[in-house]
Amino acid sequence: MPRQSDARQKMIQSAAVLFREHGVQGTSFAVVLAHSGAPRGSIYHHFQGGKSELAEEATRWAGEVMVAGTVAALAENDPVRAIDTFRRHWTKILRGSDFAAGCPIVAATLEGDREPTVRDAAGQAFSEWEKVLAAALREHGIPTARARSIASLLIAAIEGAIVVARAQRSTRPLEQVSTELQNVLSDALSEAATTA
Amino acid sequence: MPRQSDARQKMIQSAAVLFREHGVQGTSFAVVLAHSGAPRGSIYHHFQGGKSELAEEATRWAGEVMVAGTVAALAENDPVRAIDTFRRHWTKILRGSDFAAGCPIVAATLEGDREPTVRDAAGQAFSEWEKVLAAALREHGIPTARARSIASLLIAAIEGAIVVARAQRSTRPLEQVSTELQNVLSDALSEAATTA
Repeated sequence: MPRQSDARQKMIQSAAVLFREHGVQGTSFAVVLAHSGAPRGSIYHHFQGGKSELAEEATRWAGEVMVAGTVAALAENDPVRAIDTFRRHWTKILRGSDFAAGCPIVAATLEGDREPTVRDAAGQAFSEWEKVLAAALREHGIPTARARSIASLLIAAIEGAIVVARAQRSTRPLEQVSTELQNVLSDALSEAATTA
Repeated sequence: MPRQSDARQKMIQSAAVLFREHGVQGTSFAVVLAHSGAPRGSIYHHFQGGKSELAEEATRWAGEVMVAGTVAALAENDPVRAIDTFRRHWTKILRGSDFAAGCPIVAATLEGDREPTVRDAAGQAFSEWEKVLAAALREHGIPTARARSIASLLIAAIEGAIVVARAQRSTRPLEQVSTELQNVLSDALSEAATTA
């Protein structure tokens, strides 16, 4: 299903990477072109909806990457250990960017007043991520409503920890939050095992 | 200690309110003047460091308001009930702005690549907030390291829930996260009571 050309796909990925540090408004078409190595004329050819369309696609792509990473982490580990995978992933991004880079989906949300379709794509990405997490928790015996509620906590706390880590230029918030989330998961899993 | 004129203080508060919805880059001096009702010439008189100085002061002020609100909530309620106060406060802000407004300190963090002093003010605001929360948890018998770790979770999860709520245009993430945080606090407080 090669619905997207290579150049288009590269521009989408470059935009998502650039949004991490500079946000949606702070990332110009020119910078996306330079980063992706796409030819100058290709932007309006591939994104007839202009920058909104590019930003929407980049947010959607970032969401798919996050969901795929979560599915992979949960296939290899129990939920408690999967938190370690998330922590390591974000520690690498934070340290590798000198704490400048965060989550492109959060950036897309905060600029939603100017780009409602981009914000909607961010909302959708969070929903998909929550579904995947909640499904995994249900598979481990946690009741549906609680699984959704914990999934919501995991997303909020990880995203929030990344923001605080950037502000404080330290991975400590991410480490503390990961440990607390692991406690929540361990307790919920033990409870599920006892009830089963 | 009237170190700040009324006009200066009004501009700081207006900037913080505008940052909630439009971010730091998206908030011009002209809009701050219009919102605060301050006279046109007053910006450079009061903020010789230009917009960076205004943004720094606005972030600091927003942090002080958050800390004062937290101290008040914790003076009137136990930590579990204080979460209800936070939830109600943010539900009002989210609904009142049609989900456009979030936390100005998060906005200041995300635009830190362009404004490092503003980001540092955001980091400081999160640290002060964490200290106040951790101190309250210690007073309720939770050991120091755990109190800090829970405080870090509370801040990250509340801030993250506000972001997800904006993206999804729903207060549900905030409600789910509040309930989960109340579980964490109840368990930690029971444990502290048993150990004491």
